[in-house]
Amino acid sequence: NKNSRSWCLSHVTARSPQLDIWPLPQDFTSSMEQYPLNPHTFHFGYGKQSVAQRGCSVLDSAFKRYFSLLGGVKFMISHLVGVGEKNLQCPLKQINVSTKVKAVLNAETVWGAVRGEHVRLLLGYFVNKTEIVDFPRFQFRGILLDTSRHFLPVQTILKTLDAMAYNKFNVFHWHIVDDPSFPYQSCTFPNLSSKGAFHPMTHIYTQSDVRRVISYARLRGIRVLPEFDSPGHTSSWGKGTSNLLTPCYRSGIPSGTFGPVNPALPSTYQFMARLFQEVSSVFPDSFIHLGGDEVDFSCWRSNPDIRTFMQKMGFGVDFAKLQAFYMESIVNITSALKKTSIVWQDVFDYHKRVSKYMVEVWRAGCYLCEVRKVAKAGLRVILASPWYLDQPGPTHDWARYYTVWPLAFKGTDKQKKLVIGGEVCMWGEYVDATNLTPRLWPRASAAAERLWSDERRTSNVDQAFPRLQDFRCKLVRRGIQAEPLYIGHCKHEFQGV
Amino acid sequence: NKNSRSWCLSHVTARSPQLDIWPLPQDFTSSMEQYPLNPHTFHFGYGKQSVAQRGCSVLDSAFKRYFSLLGGVKFMISHLVGVGEKNLQCPLKQINVSTKVKAVLNAETVWGAVRGEHVRLLLGYFVNKTEIVDFPRFQFRGILLDTSRHFLPVQTILKTLDAMAYNKFNVFHWHIVDDPSFPYQSCTFPNLSSKGAFHPMTHIYTQSDVRRVISYARLRGIRVLPEFDSPGHTSSWGKGTSNLLTPCYRSGIPSGTFGPVNPALPSTYQFMARLFQEVSSVFPDSFIHLGGDEVDFSCWRSNPDIRTFMQKMGFGVDFAKLQAFYMESIVNITSALKKTSIVWQDVFDYHKRVSKYMVEVWRAGCYLCEVRKVAKAGLRVILASPWYLDQPGPTHDWARYYTVWPLAFKGTDKQKKLVIGGEVCMWGEYVDATNLTPRLWPRASAAAERLWSDERRTSNVDQAFPRLQDFRCKLVRRGIQAEPLYIGHCKHEFQGV
Repeated sequence: NKNSRSWCLSHVTARSPQLDIWPLPQDFTSSMEQYPLNPHTFHFGYGKQSVAQRGCSVLDSAFKRYFSLLGGVKFMISHLVGVGEKNLQCPLKQINVSTKVKAVLNAETVWGAVRGEHVRLLLGYFVNKTEIVDFPRFQFRGILLDTSRHFLPVQTILKTLDAMAYNKFNVFHWHIVDDPSFPYQSCTFPNLSSKGAFHPMTHIYTQSDVRRVISYARLRGIRVLPEFDSPGHTSSWGKGTSNLLTPCYRSGIPSGTFGPVNPALPSTYQFMARLFQEVSSVFPDSFIHLGGDEVDFSCWRSNPDIRTFMQKMGFGVDFAKLQAFYMESIVNITSALKKTSIVWQDVFDYHKRVSKYMVEVWRAGCYLCEVRKVAKAGLRVILASPWYLDQPGPTHDWARYYTVWPLAFKGTDKQKKLVIGGEVCMWGEYVDATNLTPRLWPRASAAAERLWSDERRTSNVDQAFPRLQDFRCKLVRRGIQAEPLYIGHCKHEFQGV
Repeated sequence: NKNSRSWCLSHVTARSPQLDIWPLPQDFTSSMEQYPLNPHTFHFGYGKQSVAQRGCSVLDSAFKRYFSLLGGVKFMISHLVGVGEKNLQCPLKQINVSTKVKAVLNAETVWGAVRGEHVRLLLGYFVNKTEIVDFPRFQFRGILLDTSRHFLPVQTILKTLDAMAYNKFNVFHWHIVDDPSFPYQSCTFPNLSSKGAFHPMTHIYTQSDVRRVISYARLRGIRVLPEFDSPGHTSSWGKGTSNLLTPCYRSGIPSGTFGPVNPALPSTYQFMARLFQEVSSVFPDSFIHLGGDEVDFSCWRSNPDIRTFMQKMGFGVDFAKLQAFYMESIVNITSALKKTSIVWQDVFDYHKRVSKYMVEVWRAGCYLCEVRKVAKAGLRVILASPWYLDQPGPTHDWARYYTVWPLAFKGTDKQKKLVIGGEVCMWGEYVDATNLTPRLWPRASAAAERLWSDERRTSNVDQAFPRLQDFRCKLVRRGIQAEPLYIGHCKHEFQGV
């Protein structure tokens, strides 16, 4: 009953006010009282007491975007305190569509104000008097894109960032390199992409591409978390470097194939230190993802130099210790660069007493058992297992991503606070720019609400369905190629082809 | 080794010539001999002895399309006999890329010449000397689109027709109306769409839209086969007509809900006669699809007037006989309009001695048992069961659609000839313009090759894979949002978003 379409509905059915907003705000009151809005006099402005004022690029550009999506709105940031880019928390204190038809948004941070796009969704030619108090349930709400198995043009990434912002996701986890290709154009090691990308010119991300993505994301309140996964998943690295990967042996002689990064050579750590020094400065975020998943030990095991190194280090034949040693070295490198490391759960599983990092849980099965173990060890956790959206299940599977309870494990409040959020993973085996968007949306929207909203108010699939269907039409209207949930129609269908 | 990209490969690997063409031609010889082609002097022309000459709209427009896709080619229709629009067979006798670098295409019909787009695929800056003899294995190679469960904008249908032509599909089965909506704007009964469409203005196909689709399809050698499914699947019809649907009863009184078309009223057949008279003239094709699937008998059973009618007709309580009576009446209406009727297998299953029609087999299970039964009864068959592509299985499922053997049933040659082809069905429960194209392509291409090419040369999935991967990149290059088969890249990625 907040946009012109549903207002028409309330005209007919006089249904009680409810919010057609996704993800659902933490708290709101809405009345049947309605006020007209004049689209010709809409404007945005900063409140007099606001700490942020004109010149705050994030809000200035948010005003511009919102205005063009809306056809304008009288919108005022009346109060803004505690602005800090690195502050993950962005509570959004109050939106008050008052009798004078001013939408007043109080937020503690710039990012909270950016996230206050409910206001957009609320406003039509008429508005109901509404008050909203809102803040995110989890501070880390991520989407992983894989640009190694298929190259995603920059335009596709930017479009995904648009859709992420509409869904209040705030972390773009950029799984930028992997076995199949190395599209990141490094200044320090240009051969990594010129030899390791699918194509050295058309299938790479230049420094300027990366800056563009980071800047575009920042204006939408989204952090860019780069992942340079090692020691496994590095085949493509080997094409533009020598002596980085482990030569595999067969029957005592080198077979000509290569395995994971070679953890026995000092040159490996020198290489990694230089690479991560560059990466740390290119990607300003305080987090960095170091991967560490799915390391196949067979190549290491076959190599006599590795075995000698293991003996020297006292690892015996425990290759998990070798991986732990390697990961600890990489974590130390990035710690010295003042970054907080995130690793896939494998690293935690192999070796629990390594230096501090955050753990991303990805394996299927009892993922909450793993979350609990990590939290008990006092480390922060990100949950990804239940949100692997790359596998194209039947469309109505959104409900499967919706009925996930990230904190439903036995633990203390302190342990539960260590679960800082979750992540939707869109791996690239079967996904590129042709099918990314309809495969991601609106299924990722189900995860978005789980990560933002109060679980007790958003646990019913049947109640959520019409609201999500409505939200999906809003995404389509904004040019996002979000697929349908079931039979039906949108007022404005996708016209993109 | 026929386009510039793979020519580069042959340069390096000197691999033996083979055709990167999908669907694979029936017969071809290719040598390593290569000739340069000058893109600036390419042109198309009719051969002197050709029956078709300038002014043949189908070929004139095909030349124009091919030229812009190619950057031009010296291409000559040297001989053309037996032109006939209603002739389903379109053998393509010979393409001869001669030493004088003229591509000579001999075809018996205009449609054969249109289908000769191999020539396009063969030509790059260099061509290998190649001879092709080609013709389709099956005369009916269809794709069903469902515009009732979701409305597909005309632009989306046209784009699909482009992709169909690239894949040598020649029938667009337009499942235009069904339970959820009635988007066909009828001149005779305008209320059907003004009341029964999702929206009376934005979600309808006007007469001009329909003409545009038919004309666009015709120029690409594609027939438009309309389906007006009855007596079931007609809920939306009831909104704009009265007394057409059967009132359902509960505890002896009308419940307010409606069931299938009411077969007991003479007015029903008067309505259908007028509707099909219009449809027959709007859609010029000689085939018409009458549906007849999934009729739920419970509403008929509940209705005392229907039961009285059954007694009068001597049907007892056998509702299959009632359906057969109804379908026979509709088939008689369309026969009088000189149309050949196609029905879903249900009609054949209920009643085998009805007037002549073609049968479309759609049910899962032993579909070849059904094909055999229909062929034994002397009726023509179209096979759809194994090609229900609307369910979004994992992408690599193309192999599942590829490994289908439509004639692998016990039967005489004459019976096998009754299997005139097959059809890919893209039902609309979970599909609209946002996800239609990547869900359809390249999975439908697997069916396309099965329906066009020699089964003995195209039964190996591993051999087909690289050729299909290459063809998928060609589709993407031509602007078709075809999804990837697996990890990898195209020289020109999709840039559409």
